[in-house]
Amino acid sequence: MNIFPDPLLDEAKGLIEDYRRRGWRIVTAESCTGGLIAGCLSEIPGASDVLEGGFVTYSNAAKNQHLGVPRETIQRVGAVSAKVAEAMAVGALTKGDADVAVSATGIAGPGGGSADKPVGLVFLGAARRGGQARHERHVFAGDRTAIRLAAMAAAFALLRRISDQED
Amino acid sequence: MNIFPDPLLDEAKGLIEDYRRRGWRIVTAESCTGGLIAGCLSEIPGASDVLEGGFVTYSNAAKNQHLGVPRETIQRVGAVSAKVAEAMAVGALTKGDADVAVSATGIAGPGGGSADKPVGLVFLGAARRGGQARHERHVFAGDRTAIRLAAMAAAFALLRRISDQED
Repeated sequence: MNIFPDPLLDEAKGLIEDYRRRGWRIVTAESCTGGLIAGCLSEIPGASDVLEGGFVTYSNAAKNQHLGVPRETIQRVGAVSAKVAEAMAVGALTKGDADVAVSATGIAGPGGGSADKPVGLVFLGAARRGGQARHERHVFAGDRTAIRLAAMAAAFALLRRISDQED
Repeated sequence: MNIFPDPLLDEAKGLIEDYRRRGWRIVTAESCTGGLIAGCLSEIPGASDVLEGGFVTYSNAAKNQHLGVPRETIQRVGAVSAKVAEAMAVGALTKGDADVAVSATGIAGPGGGSADKPVGLVFLGAARRGGQARHERHVFAGDRTAIRLAAMAAAFALLRRISDQED
Protein backbone atom coordinates (compact mmCIF):
# COMPACT_ATOMS: atom_id res chain seq x y z
CA MET A 1 0.00 0.00 0.00
CA ASN A 2 0.95 3.64 -0.46
CA ILE A 3 0.53 6.46 2.01
CA PHE A 4 0.77 9.23 -0.58
CA PRO A 5 -0.84 9.48 -4.04
CA ASP A 6 1.28 8.07 -6.87
CA PRO A 7 1.92 11.44 -8.61
CA LEU A 8 3.45 12.84 -5.41
CA LEU A 9 5.57 9.72 -4.89
CA ASP A 10 6.74 9.88 -8.53
CA GLU A 11 7.73 13.52 -8.10
CA ALA A 12 9.48 12.75 -4.79
CA LYS A 13 11.42 9.95 -6.50
CA GLY A 14 12.46 12.23 -9.36
CA LEU A 15 13.60 14.90 -6.91
CA ILE A 16 15.67 12.45 -4.87
CA GLU A 17 17.38 11.20 -8.06
CA ASP A 18 17.94 14.70 -9.39
CA TYR A 19 19.31 16.14 -6.16
CA ARG A 20 21.46 13.05 -5.59
CA ARG A 21 23.02 13.59 -9.03
CA ARG A 22 23.81 17.18 -8.13
CA GLY A 23 25.13 16.21 -4.70
CA TRP A 24 22.64 18.58 -3.06
CA ARG A 25 21.01 17.92 0.28
CA ILE A 26 17.51 19.12 1.26
CA VAL A 27 16.15 20.37 4.57
CA THR A 28 12.46 21.12 5.14
CA ALA A 29 10.74 23.68 7.36
CA GLU A 30 7.06 22.86 7.63
CA SER A 31 4.15 24.48 9.35
CA CYS A 32 0.81 23.73 7.65
CA THR A 33 2.16 20.57 5.99
CA GLY A 34 3.24 19.35 9.42
CA GLY A 35 6.03 17.01 8.29
CA LEU A 36 4.37 15.59 5.18
CA ILE A 37 6.94 17.04 2.75
CA ALA A 38 9.78 15.29 4.59
CA GLY A 39 7.51 12.29 5.16
CA CYS A 40 6.88 11.87 1.44
CA LEU A 41 10.49 12.44 0.39
CA SER A 42 11.58 9.82 2.95
CA GLU A 43 9.16 7.26 1.48
CA ILE A 44 11.67 6.88 -1.35
CA PRO A 45 14.33 4.22 -0.64
CA GLY A 46 17.74 5.88 -0.52
CA ALA A 47 16.26 9.26 0.43
CA SER A 48 18.94 9.52 3.11
CA ASP A 49 21.43 10.45 0.34
CA VAL A 50 19.48 13.68 -0.16
CA LEU A 51 17.19 14.40 2.80
CA GLU A 52 19.24 15.92 5.59
CA GLY A 53 16.23 16.39 7.83
CA GLY A 54 13.56 18.90 8.61
CA PHE A 55 11.71 21.01 11.11
CA VAL A 56 8.04 20.89 11.90
CA THR A 57 7.42 24.30 13.39
CA TYR A 58 3.72 24.13 14.01
CA SER A 59 3.51 26.74 16.76
CA ASN A 60 4.81 30.29 16.51
CA ALA A 61 7.11 29.52 19.45
CA ALA A 62 8.64 26.63 17.51
CA LYS A 63 9.19 28.86 14.45
CA ASN A 64 11.22 31.11 16.71
CA GLN A 65 12.92 28.49 18.89
CA HIS A 66 13.75 25.89 16.22
CA LEU A 67 14.37 28.14 13.22
CA GLY A 68 15.18 31.56 14.65
CA VAL A 69 12.27 33.33 12.94
CA PRO A 70 12.10 36.65 14.81
CA ARG A 71 9.07 36.93 17.11
CA GLU A 72 8.61 40.54 15.95
CA THR A 73 8.29 39.42 12.33
CA ILE A 74 5.60 36.90 13.25
CA GLN A 75 3.76 39.52 15.28
CA ARG A 76 4.03 42.17 12.57
CA VAL A 77 3.14 40.23 9.41
CA GLY A 78 1.67 37.00 10.81
CA ALA A 79 2.93 33.42 10.69
CA VAL A 80 1.24 32.92 7.31
CA SER A 81 3.22 35.39 5.26
CA ALA A 82 5.94 35.63 2.64
CA LYS A 83 8.44 36.97 5.16
CA VAL A 84 7.95 34.09 7.60
CA ALA A 85 8.09 31.50 4.79
CA GLU A 86 11.44 32.90 3.67
CA ALA A 87 12.73 33.18 7.24
CA MET A 88 11.79 29.55 7.91
CA ALA A 89 13.77 28.39 4.86
CA VAL A 90 16.79 30.53 5.72
CA GLY A 91 16.63 29.39 9.35
CA ALA A 92 16.57 25.73 8.36
CA LEU A 93 19.68 26.21 6.22
CA THR A 94 21.58 27.90 9.04
CA LYS A 95 20.86 25.02 11.45
CA GLY A 96 22.68 22.35 9.46
CA ASP A 97 24.57 21.29 6.37
CA ALA A 98 21.84 21.17 3.73
CA ASP A 99 22.19 22.96 0.39
CA VAL A 100 18.54 23.75 -0.30
CA ALA A 101 15.69 24.48 2.09
CA VAL A 102 11.98 24.50 1.34
CA SER A 103 9.30 25.79 3.70
CA ALA A 104 5.51 25.94 3.91
CA THR A 105 3.27 28.04 6.12
CA GLY A 106 -0.45 28.34 5.53
CA ILE A 107 -4.01 27.90 6.70
CA ALA A 108 -5.14 24.32 6.12
CA GLY A 109 -8.50 24.86 7.80
CA PRO A 110 -11.24 24.24 8.48
CA GLY A 111 -10.78 27.02 11.08
CA GLY A 112 -8.35 29.90 11.21
CA GLY A 113 -9.26 31.69 7.99
CA SER A 114 -10.16 35.36 7.57
CA ALA A 115 -11.13 37.67 4.71
CA ASP A 116 -7.52 38.74 4.46
CA LYS A 117 -6.02 35.27 4.88
CA PRO A 118 -8.51 32.66 3.75
CA VAL A 119 -8.38 28.92 4.35
CA GLY A 120 -6.17 27.54 1.59
CA LEU A 121 -3.67 30.39 1.64
CA VAL A 122 -0.17 28.92 1.66
CA PHE A 123 3.19 30.63 1.36
CA LEU A 124 6.11 28.50 0.27
CA GLY A 125 9.67 29.60 0.86
CA ALA A 126 12.95 28.35 -0.47
CA ALA A 127 16.61 29.16 -0.11
CA ARG A 128 19.86 27.90 -1.55
CA ARG A 129 23.04 28.13 0.47
CA GLY A 130 24.74 31.32 -0.62
CA GLY A 131 21.71 32.45 -2.60
CA GLN A 132 18.70 34.64 -2.02
CA ALA A 133 15.51 33.41 -0.39
CA ARG A 134 12.35 33.37 -2.46
CA HIS A 135 8.68 32.75 -1.85
CA GLU A 136 5.46 31.86 -3.60
CA ARG A 137 1.86 32.63 -2.65
CA HIS A 138 -0.85 30.09 -3.34
CA VAL A 139 -4.53 29.76 -2.54
CA PHE A 140 -5.57 26.11 -2.72
CA ALA A 141 -9.13 24.79 -2.81
CA GLY A 142 -10.60 21.84 -0.98
CA ASP A 143 -10.57 20.42 2.52
CA ARG A 144 -7.68 20.28 4.98
CA THR A 145 -6.16 17.16 3.41
CA ALA A 146 -6.51 18.48 -0.14
CA ILE A 147 -4.87 21.78 0.82
CA ARG A 148 -1.95 19.98 2.47
CA LEU A 149 -1.47 17.67 -0.51
CA ALA A 150 -1.58 20.64 -2.89
CA ALA A 151 1.01 22.45 -0.77
CA MET A 152 3.26 19.37 -0.92
CA ALA A 153 2.94 19.20 -4.71
CA ALA A 154 3.76 22.90 -5.01
CA ALA A 155 6.79 22.48 -2.71
CA PHE A 156 8.06 19.63 -4.90
CA ALA A 157 7.55 21.79 -8.01
CA LEU A 158 9.52 24.59 -6.35
CA LEU A 159 12.38 22.21 -5.49
CA ARG A 160 12.27 21.00 -9.10
CA ARG A 161 12.54 24.54 -10.50
CA ILE A 162 15.47 25.34 -8.20
CA SER A 163 17.28 22.36 -9.65
CA ASP A 164 16.27 23.12 -13.25
CA GLN A 165 17.57 26.68 -12.96
CA GLU A 166 21.04 25.25 -12.42
CA ASP A 167 21.17 23.85 -15.97
CA MET B 1 -9.62 11.42 0.60
CA ASN B 2 -7.34 10.39 3.45
CA ILE B 3 -3.57 10.28 3.43
CA PHE B 4 -3.30 7.93 6.39
CA PRO B 5 -5.28 4.76 7.19
CA ASP B 6 -8.40 5.37 9.30
CA PRO B 7 -7.16 3.53 12.41
CA LEU B 8 -4.10 5.81 12.57
CA LEU B 9 -6.23 8.93 12.07
CA ASP B 10 -8.64 7.76 14.77
CA GLU B 11 -5.77 7.22 17.18
CA ALA B 12 -4.26 10.61 16.28
CA LYS B 13 -7.63 12.27 16.93
CA GLY B 14 -7.96 10.56 20.30
CA LEU B 15 -4.44 11.61 21.27
CA ILE B 16 -5.04 15.24 20.31
CA GLU B 17 -8.25 15.29 22.39
CA ASP B 18 -6.62 13.55 25.33
CA TYR B 19 -3.49 15.71 25.39
CA ARG B 20 -5.57 18.86 24.89
CA ARG B 21 -7.63 17.92 27.97
CA ARG B 22 -4.43 17.53 29.98
CA GLY B 23 -2.94 20.74 28.60
CA TRP B 24 0.10 18.81 27.37
CA ARG B 25 2.01 19.69 24.23
CA ILE B 26 3.83 17.16 22.04
CA VAL B 27 7.09 17.43 20.13
CA THR B 28 8.32 14.72 17.76
CA ALA B 29 11.85 13.61 16.86
CA GLU B 30 11.73 11.38 13.81
CA SER B 31 14.33 9.50 11.85
CA CYS B 32 12.89 6.43 10.06
CA THR B 33 9.34 7.83 10.11
CA GLY B 34 10.68 10.98 8.44
CA GLY B 35 7.97 13.38 9.61
CA LEU B 36 4.95 11.07 9.32
CA ILE B 37 4.18 11.05 13.07
CA ALA B 38 3.89 14.85 13.09
CA GLY B 39 2.26 14.73 9.66
CA CYS B 40 -0.51 12.43 10.89
CA LEU B 41 -1.09 14.27 14.16
CA SER B 42 -1.38 17.52 12.18
CA GLU B 43 -4.05 16.00 9.92
CA ILE B 44 -6.44 16.48 12.84
CA PRO B 45 -8.14 19.93 12.84
CA GLY B 46 -7.12 21.81 15.95
CA ALA B 47 -3.86 19.84 16.30
CA SER B 48 -2.10 23.14 16.89
CA ASP B 49 -3.49 23.11 20.45
CA VAL B 50 -1.28 20.08 21.16
CA LEU B 51 1.43 19.70 18.50
CA GLU B 52 4.25 22.10 19.28
CA GLY B 53 6.35 20.89 16.38
CA GLY B 54 8.94 18.31 15.54
CA PHE B 55 12.32 17.44 14.17
CA VAL B 56 13.08 15.21 11.24
CA THR B 57 16.64 14.16 11.91
CA TYR B 58 17.23 11.84 9.01
CA SER B 59 21.02 12.09 8.89
CA ASN B 60 23.36 11.47 11.80
CA ALA B 61 24.58 15.06 11.45
CA ALA B 62 21.02 16.34 11.91
CA LYS B 63 20.57 14.17 15.02
CA ASN B 64 23.58 15.96 16.44
CA GLN B 65 22.96 19.47 15.07
CA HIS B 66 19.19 19.69 15.59
CA LEU B 67 18.78 17.60 18.73
CA GLY B 68 22.19 17.57 20.40
CA VAL B 69 22.57 13.79 20.26
CA PRO B 70 26.29 13.31 20.97
CA ARG B 71 28.28 12.20 17.93
CA GLU B 72 30.21 9.75 20.13
CA THR B 73 26.98 8.03 21.17
CA ILE B 74 25.96 7.58 17.53
CA GLN B 75 29.42 6.25 16.68
CA ARG B 76 29.52 3.89 19.66
CA VAL B 77 26.04 2.34 19.62
CA GLY B 78 24.72 3.35 16.18
CA ALA B 79 21.91 5.67 15.16
CA VAL B 80 19.41 2.80 15.47
CA SER B 81 19.69 2.15 19.18
CA ALA B 82 17.87 2.64 22.46
CA LYS B 83 20.35 5.28 23.59
CA VAL B 84 19.91 7.41 20.48
CA ALA B 85 16.10 7.07 20.59
CA GLU B 86 16.11 8.34 24.17
CA ALA B 87 18.60 11.11 23.39
CA MET B 88 16.46 12.27 20.45
CA ALA B 89 13.39 12.54 22.69
CA VAL B 90 15.29 14.35 25.45
CA GLY B 91 16.91 16.66 22.89
CA ALA B 92 13.56 17.59 21.36
CA LEU B 93 12.20 18.53 24.81
CA THR B 94 15.19 20.74 25.56
CA LYS B 95 14.75 22.70 22.30
CA GLY B 96 11.30 24.06 23.10
CA ASP B 97 8.30 24.22 25.38
CA ALA B 98 6.64 20.84 24.80
CA ASP B 99 5.69 18.56 27.70
CA VAL B 100 6.10 15.18 26.01
CA ALA B 101 8.49 14.08 23.28
CA VAL B 102 8.30 10.94 21.18
CA SER B 103 11.07 9.70 18.88
CA ALA B 104 11.63 6.98 16.31
CA THR B 105 14.85 5.66 14.81
CA GLY B 106 14.97 2.48 12.78
CA ILE B 107 15.74 0.69 9.56
CA ALA B 108 12.82 1.00 7.16
CA GLY B 109 14.65 -0.78 4.33
CA PRO B 110 14.87 -2.17 1.81
CA GLY B 111 18.63 -1.56 2.29
CA GLY B 112 20.63 -0.91 5.42
CA GLY B 113 19.85 -4.04 7.40
CA SER B 114 22.34 -6.44 8.98
CA ALA B 115 22.19 -9.64 11.03
CA ASP B 116 22.51 -7.56 14.17
CA LYS B 117 20.12 -4.80 13.09
CA PRO B 118 17.64 -6.19 10.57
CA VAL B 119 15.29 -4.22 8.34
CA GLY B 120 12.22 -3.50 10.48
CA LEU B 121 14.15 -2.82 13.69
CA VAL B 122 12.78 0.36 15.23
CA PHE B 123 13.56 1.97 18.55
CA LEU B 124 11.02 4.41 19.93
CA GLY B 125 11.93 6.88 22.62
CA ALA B 126 9.84 9.10 24.83
CA ALA B 127 10.39 11.64 27.54
CA ARG B 128 8.22 13.77 29.77
CA ARG B 129 9.50 17.09 31.02
CA GLY B 130 10.96 16.47 34.43
CA GLY B 131 10.71 12.70 34.01
CA GLN B 132 12.97 9.90 32.86
CA ALA B 133 13.41 8.95 29.23
CA ARG B 134 12.23 5.54 28.14
CA HIS B 135 12.51 3.41 25.03
CA GLU B 136 10.93 0.46 23.26
CA ARG B 137 12.45 -1.98 20.78
CA HIS B 138 10.32 -3.32 17.94
CA VAL B 139 10.93 -5.45 14.88
CA PHE B 140 8.22 -4.81 12.31
CA ALA B 141 7.49 -6.94 9.24
CA GLY B 142 6.67 -5.83 5.73
CA ASP B 143 7.97 -3.34 3.23
CA ARG B 144 9.28 0.18 3.84
CA THR B 145 5.81 1.73 3.98
CA ALA B 146 4.42 -0.99 6.26
CA ILE B 147 7.36 -0.62 8.65
CA ARG B 148 6.91 3.16 8.81
CA LEU B 149 3.15 2.86 9.39
CA ALA B 150 3.75 0.27 12.13
CA ALA B 151 6.29 2.57 13.77
CA MET B 152 3.73 5.41 13.70
CA ALA B 153 1.09 3.20 15.31
CA ALA B 154 3.54 2.13 18.02
CA ALA B 155 4.53 5.76 18.65
CA PHE B 156 0.86 6.68 19.07
CA ALA B 157 0.39 3.76 21.47
CA LEU B 158 3.41 4.94 23.46
CA LEU B 159 1.99 8.48 23.68
CA ARG B 160 -1.32 6.95 24.78
CA ARG B 161 0.34 4.94 27.57
CA ILE B 162 2.22 8.01 28.82
CA SER B 163 -1.10 9.78 29.16
CA ASP B 164 -2.89 6.78 30.72
CA GLN B 165 -0.18 6.42 33.36
CA GLU B 166 -1.16 9.84 34.64
CA ASP B 167 -4.58 8.58 35.80
